[in-house]
Order: sequence, then structure tokens, then C-alpha cells
Amino acid sequence: VSKRALDVLVVGGGSFGTALAHVLAANGRRARLWVRRPEIAAEVNERHTNTAYAPGAALAPALTATAELAPSVREAAVVLVAVPSRAFREVAAALGEHLEGDQILVHGTKGIELGTGKRMSEILREETCCLKIGVLSGPSLAAEVMAGHPAGALVASRFDEVVAAVQRLFAGSWLRVYGGRDVVGTEVGGSFKNVIALAAGVVDGLGLGDNTKALLVTRGLSEMAQFGVALGGEVFTFGGLAGVGDLVATCASELSRNHQVGERLGKGEPLEAILASLTHVAEGVPTARAVHQQALRRRLDLPIAAAVHAVIADGTRARDAVKALMARPAGDELAQLRYR
Amino acid sequence: VSKRALDVLVVGGGSFGTALAHVLAANGRRARLWVRRPEIAAEVNERHTNTAYAPGAALAPALTATAELAPSVREAAVVLVAVPSRAFREVAAALGEHLEGDQILVHGTKGIELGTGKRMSEILREETCCLKIGVLSGPSLAAEVMAGHPAGALVASRFDEVVAAVQRLFAGSWLRVYGGRDVVGTEVGGSFKNVIALAAGVVDGLGLGDNTKALLVTRGLSEMAQFGVALGGEVFTFGGLAGVGDLVATCASELSRNHQVGERLGKGEPLEAILASLTHVAEGVPTARAVHQQALRRRLDLPIAAAVHAVIADGTRARDAVKALMARPAGDELAQLRYR
Repeated sequence: VSKRALDVLVVGGGSFGTALAHVLAANGRRARLWVRRPEIAAEVNERHTNTAYAPGAALAPALTATAELAPSVREAAVVLVAVPSRAFREVAAALGEHLEGDQILVHGTKGIELGTGKRMSEILREETCCLKIGVLSGPSLAAEVMAGHPAGALVASRFDEVVAAVQRLFAGSWLRVYGGRDVVGTEVGGSFKNVIALAAGVVDGLGLGDNTKALLVTRGLSEMAQFGVALGGEVFTFGGLAGVGDLVATCASELSRNHQVGERLGKGEPLEAILASLTHVAEGVPTARAVHQQALRRRLDLPIAAAVHAVIADGTRARDAVKALMARPAGDELAQLRYR
Repeated sequence: VSKRALDVLVVGGGSFGTALAHVLAANGRRARLWVRRPEIAAEVNERHTNTAYAPGAALAPALTATAELAPSVREAAVVLVAVPSRAFREVAAALGEHLEGDQILVHGTKGIELGTGKRMSEILREETCCLKIGVLSGPSLAAEVMAGHPAGALVASRFDEVVAAVQRLFAGSWLRVYGGRDVVGTEVGGSFKNVIALAAGVVDGLGLGDNTKALLVTRGLSEMAQFGVALGGEVFTFGGLAGVGDLVATCASELSRNHQVGERLGKGEPLEAILASLTHVAEGVPTARAVHQQALRRRLDLPIAAAVHAVIADGTRARDAVKALMARPAGDELAQLRYR
């Protein structure tokens, strides 16, 4: 649709980036995947697999990969960044060397920058000349997207053009992309849900049931919305795919790394031992710290987020944190949202 | 707390009524359970069990039961009705013979009256002299409440006095009861979620994953909110325990009868065979019809509810209904809610 040679460049060959690039190529788009390691690029190009991040999956044969950023960035109408939050600024700065102001720049990274507390779209704005920035979020566990199961996502941007471009890329595929305008809410949803997923894992680790988890998810959603509204997001976003949708998928799934960390905490394992054994990033751990800092600064009362932080940072036992939550009085359910 | 001899009479000895009465008695309230069958009343009083509806559970020894309505109704400060929707009007009328206008009347029944489309609180108002009416709803799978796992619920009423009385009854127990004012939204949430639970069962029956289910739950929540707002409910209620909370618990749980029906539909079993094999009521089936009627009358576009109705009433294959849903264009996510 564009005069550029590529419809889309996906930046980041982890599980999520690979899944997105595969969907887009299978959907007939001219898609390329940038990966850091040349041997993975070669594997994608020659064998149409990415055994490190999409084990067992056959990638769309039309998908090409590269380990060189510059030429591909210049060719792409849309650049979609999907790298872990801790690598985000470095990658954004590298992109910034090559992007031109008319290009569309979207990210799918769920996290907050440690230290600064900045959202990923803020980093993109700081490190590139692009104005047309958006975020893609929602319940999209990579392995299931790769398997071709129907899924939904949300693209949010201040610019209708960004929303329309991303919806066009995925139109007709098994990933239904809805549109929205609330960038802040969409980014907060995707980050905050990992904190609640940790807590949901604790509930499962303690052997509690679906009622308890539903209580946690619902009150966690309310905290997420309070936090997001305080940062400038729109409350309704949290009732959508980037809020409750992503939260439900992550809390239900045994594929979620944050959920797994919580479950092991619930069973009494110490955090250090859990983190030491992980091969992938569990974004919920740093996000819990970032949320806690912001909540203190803004004087927000977020009991579940505070409990997760206490377990992670202060060594409170998960079982005691749950007991303390239950001992709080239950007031007016909507008090925090209705009278905002 | 009251001058009456009983703090609470729970009307209905099914699984939910028994669980509520048990929690209340274990929480030190003077609680009695009314059951239709005298032999069950005797079993509760003598052996502290209800093997038909709470198999394996030891009931609080302080809980008494009766099969005679009149004397117990007069003694109770709060009457809490938990009978299936199809028996609701008959039981309400029987209560109406004995209730006095100062008594507090609350129900925990999730359904809509067939034919009239009326909500349970409307039936209570029609059949009794009570004005102080409320509804108790939320994610409270009976077996888990019975097991003592932490759970949350919402009591909604136009009267603060009703909310306070019910919160007082449960204060200190493992059932956290939040308060609200939106009776319509709370009743719609509890009913509509069974329709979405049927659809979630279909998704599981078809072998799709957590992404697909999260998409369904999120879009189903949006339909529930549209429907509830059209009936006069408040949109925020659907983000709370009676909306998303109950929806999440029901869609996740294999204990949910509606989920089970959907799962068997997804696997290709005909509805007649499924219904013939059930020993309990699956409220989602009649509710899907009631919602469909109302949606037509009010010209609401509720694609998931319509798909469930098509499978149940028109014999559409579950697999084809899912395909048709996915073929719809994905627009602005919040269009239906934001511009209401």
C-alpha cells in the first residue's frame, strides 16, 4: 500500500516479535523481522524457523529476516518494535539514526523504564524524529498467536492514520486489531497487568480457587484503572482488550512468566532463587517497583500492588500478604472510580 | 443486632443458599436455612450436612434449618433468597404472605424471568410489601465458598441501610462484601455472564486458547455493559465484581454448568442431548433467549449474544458461529460505550 519496499519491519526476534512478523507475512504483507543475532536471521531466511523463540513453529515462507537495521528501517512504511523494556531505549536510539518523520512507529512492549518510570511511547518520542507513534497491546500470548488461534489486540494512537495503518496490516488475519486513542491507558494496562499476574500466581500457588482469583483480578483491575487515570489515561480503556482482556489472559495462562513467578512465591520459594532460575524476563518484578514509586508520589492507595511490592522488595511472605489484604474493610466498590 | 430472633433467613437450600447460610452461621450470625424438603432440614439440623447440595461439607453446627416458611420469615431481620429463577416468583409470593414492610429482602439469584423478562428484584417488589430490597452478586462459585476460600461479592440497593445490613452480616467472614447502588447493573451482570460463559465453553470445546477466550470475555463484557446501560444500569458496575468479576470466575471454572454446556456444544453435541443429561439448571440457556428478545426490541447490536442464541435456538453449528464472529470487521473498541 506504501511506496516503500516493505509494509512493515518488526524489530525484535523474541517470541512476540516473531509471532507478529509471522502473522503479517502469512497475511500477505511484505514483512521483515530484525533480530540481533545474524544466525537467527539466517535461520529464518533459510529454514523458516526460529527455534530459540518459536520452538516447533513453521514460519510463513515469505517472511524475511535481517540483522542489519539501517537499510530495512528506511524501507518500511511501518516499524513495529517488540523488544524487552530494558533494551528498549537502546533499540529506539538505534532506530532514531535511520527513521524519517513520515514513518509510522508502533511498539508492543509491556513495561515501564526502570529509574525514569517512563512509558515506551515517551522513549520513542525522545529518541526518534517520529511523531506518528502508537502502541499495540492486548491479550496476545505469543505461542497462541503463533498457533493461529483467534486473538484480539488494540492499537492506540493520537493519530487516526496510525490506527488505520496498523488495522490494515492485520485485516483479514486471525489477529483482530481494534482501534483506540488512549496511548497512556493502553501502555499502563499492558504494564500493570503483569503485577496483578504475579499476585494471581500467588493465589494459585496457595491453592485458592477461581472465586479468589476473580476477586483479585477485579480489584486489581480497579487499581490499574486508578493508576492509569492518575497518569492521564481514560478509564474505559481498562475495560477493554489492553486492560481486562490482557489481564484475564495473563492471569489464566500457565504460559505467563509473571504468573509462574507468583505461583512459586505462593509455594514459599524465595524470590532470588526464582529469578536466578528464569531464562526469560518477568516484567512484573521491575514494574511492581516502578508502580510502587509512582503510587507513593501520587498518594494512590493500591493495596494489591503494595502487597506485591512488599513480597518482592521487603520479603513479606506471600501467605501473610494475602491475609493482610483480606483483613481490610470492604467499602463501596466503585468509590475510587466513580468520584474521580 | 436486631430485635428479631434471627439475624438472617436464607431461603433456598441449593448449593449457593447452603453455602451462604454456612458462611453466616460460621461467622457467628443467628442464621437459619429454609429448604423445601423436610428431610434435608432434618439432615442439616441433626447431622450438619446437606449431602444433596453440599456433598462432603461439614456445615457450621450453629446453622439451623426448617421446611416451614411462616415462623422463620417473621423472625428474620434480613431475608436472603437464593432459589433458581424459574421458582423465584412462586417463592417470592409465599414470602409475601409473611413479610413485614420493615424487613430487609435481598436475593442472590442470577437469571431473568422467562416470558416477562423481569429482573428478580422487580419480582420481589411485585410479590411482597418490602421496599428495602437488594441484590447480592459476584464471583461466588458455591463449592469454593463452602471450602472457605476468600471470595468477594457485591450487595447493591437503592437503600444504604440494606447495603450496611448485608455488609454487617458478612463482616469478618471469608466472603468480602462490597457495597453499591446499581441494582439493575448488578442483576444484568449476574444474568448476562451466563450467556458469555456458554460462549467461553464453546471456545474451550473447540480447543482454542487463552487469547481467544480473553477476546471473547472482553467483547462479551462490552456487550453486557451495553445491554445493562440500555436497561438503566451504570456502566462502571460491569467493571466490578458483579460484572467482570463474576464473568471471569464463571468462564474460568470447570465447575460452571453454563461453561460445561458450551464446551459440549463446541465439541459438536446437540443441545437437546446436553440438556437432557443435566441434573441442574443451566441458567444461560433461557437467559440467552431473554437477552435476544430484549436486544431485538431495543435494537442493540450484540454479536456474541446473537451467536449464542443462533447456536441454541436456530441450530447453527458452534464452529460456524465462531467463524462468523471473526469475520466481522474490528472497529473502534470503545465506540459503543464512549459515545453512549
